[in-house]
Amino acid sequence: MRVNELSREGRGHTSALVFDAGDEVVQVLKTHARRTGLRAAHFTALGAFERATLAYFDWKSKAYEEIPVDEQVEVASLVGDIGIHEGEVIVHAHCVLGRRDGSTLAGHLLEGHVRPTLELFLNAHDGELTRVTDEASGLPLIQ
Amino acid sequence: MRVNELSREGRGHTSALVFDAGDEVVQVLKTHARRTGLRAAHFTALGAFERATLAYFDWKSKAYEEIPVDEQVEVASLVGDIGIHEGEVIVHAHCVLGRRDGSTLAGHLLEGHVRPTLELFLNAHDGELTRVTDEASGLPLIQ
Amino acid sequence: MRVNELSREGRGHTSALVFDAGDEVVQVLKTHARRTGLRAAHFTALGAFERATLAYFDWKSKAYEEIPVDEQVEVASLVGDIGIHEGEVIVHAHCVLGRRDGSTLAGHLLEGHVRPTLELFLNAHDGELTRVTDEASGLPLIQ
Repeated sequence: MRVNELSREGRGHTSALVFDAGDEVVQVLKTHARRTGLRAAHFTALGAFERATLAYFDWKSKAYEEIPVDEQVEVASLVGDIGIHEGEVIVHAHCVLGRRDGSTLAGHLLEGHVRPTLELFLNAHDGELTRVTDEASGLPLIQ
Repeated sequence: MRVNELSREGRGHTSALVFDAGDEVVQVLKTHARRTGLRAAHFTALGAFERATLAYFDWKSKAYEEIPVDEQVEVASLVGDIGIHEGEVIVHAHCVLGRRDGSTLAGHLLEGHVRPTLELFLNAHDGELTRVTDEASGLPLIQ
Repeated sequence: MRVNELSREGRGHTSALVFDAGDEVVQVLKTHARRTGLRAAHFTALGAFERATLAYFDWKSKAYEEIPVDEQVEVASLVGDIGIHEGEVIVHAHCVLGRRDGSTLAGHLLEGHVRPTLELFLNAHDGELTRVTDEASGLPLIQ
């Protein structure tokens, strides 16, 4: 386990990002990070999606298997971070979705289409969360 | 997506709220917010409920459908925020509950009756998270 | 409900802890807390486990029932805190795990074996989250 110091003595910065119906979370977050020069952040969120695509990382094939979610769901939990891989913004987020009967689906978030809202609390930090491609998994992991 | 600046340069304030058996989370949080003049906050929590009422927002009827949970459950995740709608404190929270066999229930939290504890980390901010009734959904959404 | 003030006016300190394949989360966090003198913190995390042991607290027997998870799972949510009980570091964490088909398991985290990574955002605070054994439950609860 390695430790990256992010914010000491109040150098952090918190914003509420309020998404609207039709926003796709991952793309909107990437655009926001690029536009504001954000290179290190973490977040939690709650809200609802009209539809989403989750994924499960298969350790044998080293590939994500998609889990389509084609129904209105509560976003019961969304936890993630923003960093940089080879100069590009990377949004990494996992979520738990609640269905009409309270049953759940969870995984890595590929796409989440907001309806009617998503309330995301973003903790932005100085510095950079740098990702480097990991040989064992093929994934861009934080260094 | 809109951005509300909440805390810059260390103006935020974090507290641990420790709930006791018998506390109902939403009501206790509302009372705490009113008593301390809190108008903008977000939180995460873990603990256990003796019973709870979750809900799913039905997009067609624009109404919440209740999901009663009449058993002791682990609060695996509780994510939420505190804001103001028409002068009144609003607590908005979603949670994931774990049952005896590890299966889960998730949704919008209407009521959660704590037993034996709930540990909630509250990030309080200056300013206000203002909610306004949204025409499309009928819900009080953050502006 | 009792309130512990943790960080006012930017006294808090945030780190990203990046776990590697093979790390067991609870033990690594305890070691980190002991080595750095950490006595009050809370965190959220996302990543994946090769295997884990969750638990459900049975209110009648006042004991945890184990829920073994013997498969690669996404850590969809991990929420927890670090405090002190009778002079020893206590890590308290609950998590939601996502399986290959998107179905979930959740509960109190006894053991989580990371593969390939876990990204944990740790908010460290001054002071101490002190736990005292609660008579009704037998659990070490925050005072």
